[in-house]
Amino acid sequence: MTTTNGVNVDQLTETIDAIDDQPTAGQFRFYAETEWTDALHCVTTIDEFDQADERIQTREFRIEGDEPEEILGERTAPNAVELLLAALGSCLSVGYAANAAAMGIDLEGLRFEMDGDVDLRGFLGLEEEVRPGYEEITCTTYIESDAEADELAALRERVEATSPLIDSITNEVPIETELVVGHSA
Amino acid sequence: MTTTNGVNVDQLTETIDAIDDQPTAGQFRFYAETEWTDALHCVTTIDEFDQADERIQTREFRIEGDEPEEILGERTAPNAVELLLAALGSCLSVGYAANAAAMGIDLEGLRFEMDGDVDLRGFLGLEEEVRPGYEEITCTTYIESDAEADELAALRERVEATSPLIDSITNEVPIETELVVGHSA
Repeated sequence: MTTTNGVNVDQLTETIDAIDDQPTAGQFRFYAETEWTDALHCVTTIDEFDQADERIQTREFRIEGDEPEEILGERTAPNAVELLLAALGSCLSVGYAANAAAMGIDLEGLRFEMDGDVDLRGFLGLEEEVRPGYEEITCTTYIESDAEADELAALRERVEATSPLIDSITNEVPIETELVVGHSA
Repeated sequence: MTTTNGVNVDQLTETIDAIDDQPTAGQFRFYAETEWTDALHCVTTIDEFDQADERIQTREFRIEGDEPEEILGERTAPNAVELLLAALGSCLSVGYAANAAAMGIDLEGLRFEMDGDVDLRGFLGLEEEVRPGYEEITCTTYIESDAEADELAALRERVEATSPLIDSITNEVPIETELVVGHSA
């Protein structure tokens, strides 16, 4: 078994070949369910996904949400826009570790610092010209590696071009919503 | 103190007025730092943000990331695209609870089911035409409330128009990246 950056490279190659041969094996549907608890608190549960239309049950994860006191919450958990930065960092971490393994690049350290600006007037509906979401996000990647500079530049280019979170954030993803109303007894 | 949906409505009104009077009070910068640990595992820490350029230190939150076994991980934590759905649900939860409070709508229950499709060929770089991120996201909102249908429709419209996560996902957010390389001793 060949392992680079803790990633099993043989298994990685097999997975890539299997999806290349049979693209349906690469079709995933992910799920999450968020329940509002009180005030600005909520909890999201994640415990399943589909691969090639087949449901896969997994252990359950719980992710809490809240707002800081400055935004009327109690800071019992990160808020949604902070979770988005966490998702971006998590995505880039996988992208760098896996692609470096595929390219034979040993990483000794890998860390990401992200920040982004939000003007709360958008969320509060005070200014129509102010967008509710992030105006811009900055991400600095810190790599420790003895690989050549041009190899690391190629790694960066590959990771950024294929990152699901960079794509979802920098480009448009359609969201279809539905509202189902129930009445109390 | 007037409370609707657990939200202090007086404080909500004061906060909105304060930001309307002094827009800099609504300028937030959020931060997250992700550290790769091994293979496809990482941990993100969140412990501070800025309001009006002033740093506010808070308790620290840790969010772990991993991939399922089907994507070469160990399923010790949700992956990045699942975290994105959690962020969306968390955002909508705050949006519905706060806007309903501002509109005088009592909510008895509030829940969101989200899903989204990812074709892994994009992340793996197997097909240039396949995007790495979500092709589409679906979100169903379940509300329990005795409010009138047109009030709930107005609430939904307001929430969706001002949601930071709906905006960040359905529209383009620029990401500026930088790579800093260090070498081991």
